[in-house]
Amino acid sequence: MAEEKPYLTGRTYIFRLPKGKDLQDSITAFCHDNQIKCGIINAIGAVENATVSYYDQAKKKYEKIVLEDEHELVSLIGNVSIKDNRPFVHAHAILSNKKGEVKAGHLMLGTKIFSAEVYIQELVGEPKVRKEDKVTKLQLWA
Amino acid sequence: MAEEKPYLTGRTYIFRLPKGKDLQDSITAFCHDNQIKCGIINAIGAVENATVSYYDQAKKKYEKIVLEDEHELVSLIGNVSIKDNRPFVHAHAILSNKKGEVKAGHLMLGTKIFSAEVYIQELVGEPKVRKEDKVTKLQLWA
Amino acid sequence: MAEEKPYLTGRTYIFRLPKGKDLQDSITAFCHDNQIKCGIINAIGAVENATVSYYDQAKKKYEKIVLEDEHELVSLIGNVSIKDNRPFVHAHAILSNKKGEVKAGHLMLGTKIFSAEVYIQELVGEPKVRKEDKVTKLQLWA
Repeated sequence: MAEEKPYLTGRTYIFRLPKGKDLQDSITAFCHDNQIKCGIINAIGAVENATVSYYDQAKKKYEKIVLEDEHELVSLIGNVSIKDNRPFVHAHAILSNKKGEVKAGHLMLGTKIFSAEVYIQELVGEPKVRKEDKVTKLQLWA
Repeated sequence: MAEEKPYLTGRTYIFRLPKGKDLQDSITAFCHDNQIKCGIINAIGAVENATVSYYDQAKKKYEKIVLEDEHELVSLIGNVSIKDNRPFVHAHAILSNKKGEVKAGHLMLGTKIFSAEVYIQELVGEPKVRKEDKVTKLQLWA
Repeated sequence: MAEEKPYLTGRTYIFRLPKGKDLQDSITAFCHDNQIKCGIINAIGAVENATVSYYDQAKKKYEKIVLEDEHELVSLIGNVSIKDNRPFVHAHAILSNKKGEVKAGHLMLGTKIFSAEVYIQELVGEPKVRKEDKVTKLQLWA
């Protein structure tokens, strides 16, 4: 593995996102508005519906999984880096229903916030940039 | 969204919680004993039983989900902030059984530790304070 | 609970692991190569197969759970500390399939990376050392 340069820790945020907004979009907007180019993210809360996806490794494309009803957001883990010169949030979300049963996947647009508490730790250094990876066809860091 | 002020990172802890204690209670006590008013938390381990819950967004109340037997604690993500002038831990927990099947929800009292490894990053700045939100009836940050 | 000394935050890394490698092994190698003795870890990505396990608290042994096919790695949370004088990674992994259904457990060797984005925060201070715990028979911090 190529040698990795460590980052310095920059600004640290914990904040609440407004009800009714889109989860992916709101976190991305926060990063954009605060010029956060590189960092780690996590969140918990609840959603009114959710859209996650699964990357089919053979077909090389994302398959949507739509959850029509309300769920607890029991885990969101991810990062922010640069894609097409803009902050891009890559997060995976885990959701639980009334019986505690769980569904999960790659977070997509289409997840309506009921309540969300987000943590972002900015990382200062050479921002990671996403480009299409020849093998997986995913947008990955070099 | 209102502008968010960044926090400074304060004390950082990783520690093990004693077997047999309650997970929610022990993390809260740690925050209280060390005057941690604001921070992020995660943990992994195993439990002898667990109590999580689901917030019914229409009825505006938590519904308990009790897991009678042992589980791996595969994820706990949350935060500590101030509620009623005391450190209050809000965490969501994900648990897996012998077959790797998963249940999850909002962590409640009633989760007996078998082993638990906890990470707390204190955040220094204006502590978040929870008050009842008029719309969701949840105890949320302003 | 014995008083816990806080850690200082050391180097911070986010990086991508190579396709085809083993997840547990690669993270451990990264810690070894960079002399990271103590820290917290999380990751997201996708895997071609996975091996996790469940610790049977009565039999005092790990039971393997093998997932033959591809999954999203929707959460990996863990830590690095010292065991037998070497960096040892203890992580729990949560994986989701094409329908968003989830399996989880204690991460073992035998998890082939399709893509993986890892975050490690080094913690500077007295490294945690794992020894066999008399009661649980797990390798735990004192």
